[in-house]
Amino acid sequence: MRVLGVDPGLTRCGLGVVEGERGRVRMVAVGVVRTPSDAEPGQRLVYLESQFDQWLEKFGPDVVAVERVFADVNVASVMTTAHATAIALLVAARRGIPVVFHTPTEVKAAVTGTGRAHKAQVSGMVMRILRLTEPPRPADAADALALAVCHVWRGEAQASIDAARKALDARRVAT
Amino acid sequence: MRVLGVDPGLTRCGLGVVEGERGRVRMVAVGVVRTPSDAEPGQRLVYLESQFDQWLEKFGPDVVAVERVFADVNVASVMTTAHATAIALLVAARRGIPVVFHTPTEVKAAVTGTGRAHKAQVSGMVMRILRLTEPPRPADAADALALAVCHVWRGEAQASIDAARKALDARRVAT
Repeated sequence: MRVLGVDPGLTRCGLGVVEGERGRVRMVAVGVVRTPSDAEPGQRLVYLESQFDQWLEKFGPDVVAVERVFADVNVASVMTTAHATAIALLVAARRGIPVVFHTPTEVKAAVTGTGRAHKAQVSGMVMRILRLTEPPRPADAADALALAVCHVWRGEAQASIDAARKALDARRVAT
Repeated sequence: MRVLGVDPGLTRCGLGVVEGERGRVRMVAVGVVRTPSDAEPGQRLVYLESQFDQWLEKFGPDVVAVERVFADVNVASVMTTAHATAIALLVAARRGIPVVFHTPTEVKAAVTGTGRAHKAQVSGMVMRILRLTEPPRPADAADALALAVCHVWRGEAQASIDAARKALDARRVAT
């Protein structure tokens, strides 16, 4: 199973691809898509769309795992994060790739064993799990790798895909 | 000037097109795009994308006016509203059409003279302004018409377009 983890954002969007199964996961790719904060909002989404699509085309993930963001922090940043998430959903859906969401707490718990882990603990465990000799670069994308690992690690991958496929099939039948 | 007003939503997205200038505005079209709440989220966005694009193609607005939503109500509904907004931004940007945002208070104030107007007052004023003999149908889309009227009414249209174009040009120069 190959998973693309997405840490959604408009200024910086972390992307990380891992492959394998629980207990045996390797890193395939890691990166960050940046858009200038002074650019027109719609143009930033157009760029993000093209970059997401290139990653899906190049790495062909079986599933996309996105961080589920709650509206409990800065309103403006939550909105732009939600916009980036929408583009990921859209682009993946066009290719028929299921998208699953994991909360930051779920990611921390899956990777370190505790939902209250610090950033450094998560990064350290991601290095161990992926057998990296140094922290993933760019640092912004470490969270995306953790998300992807989380998805494999939690062993829920297949169930989520089945559920997404089922919803998709139900809609196809309905239309 | 022709304006497409968008009352963003995933379950129901109101769309209304008006044309004219301050003091003389007519309704061109009104409608609602619905997506089934039990469908896969990404597929709902794909459908919304195709519908937005058809409206832009068919009615060729000079500007798209979208309701600015704040994260102070139900978290889940704010997120799906933000997703719908992102798709509107994306599709308009692809066609080089500027998108402007107005808050619900701005819309009420522009159309009725008070930011605290009730829904019925707004609907009544939209009818008078657009010289409709009955309330706009479907009712869900009345807010979209109010948004579009607001944009013309506030007399800020040209300034907003200029600002958007300027930002776009600045980005083009930068890339």
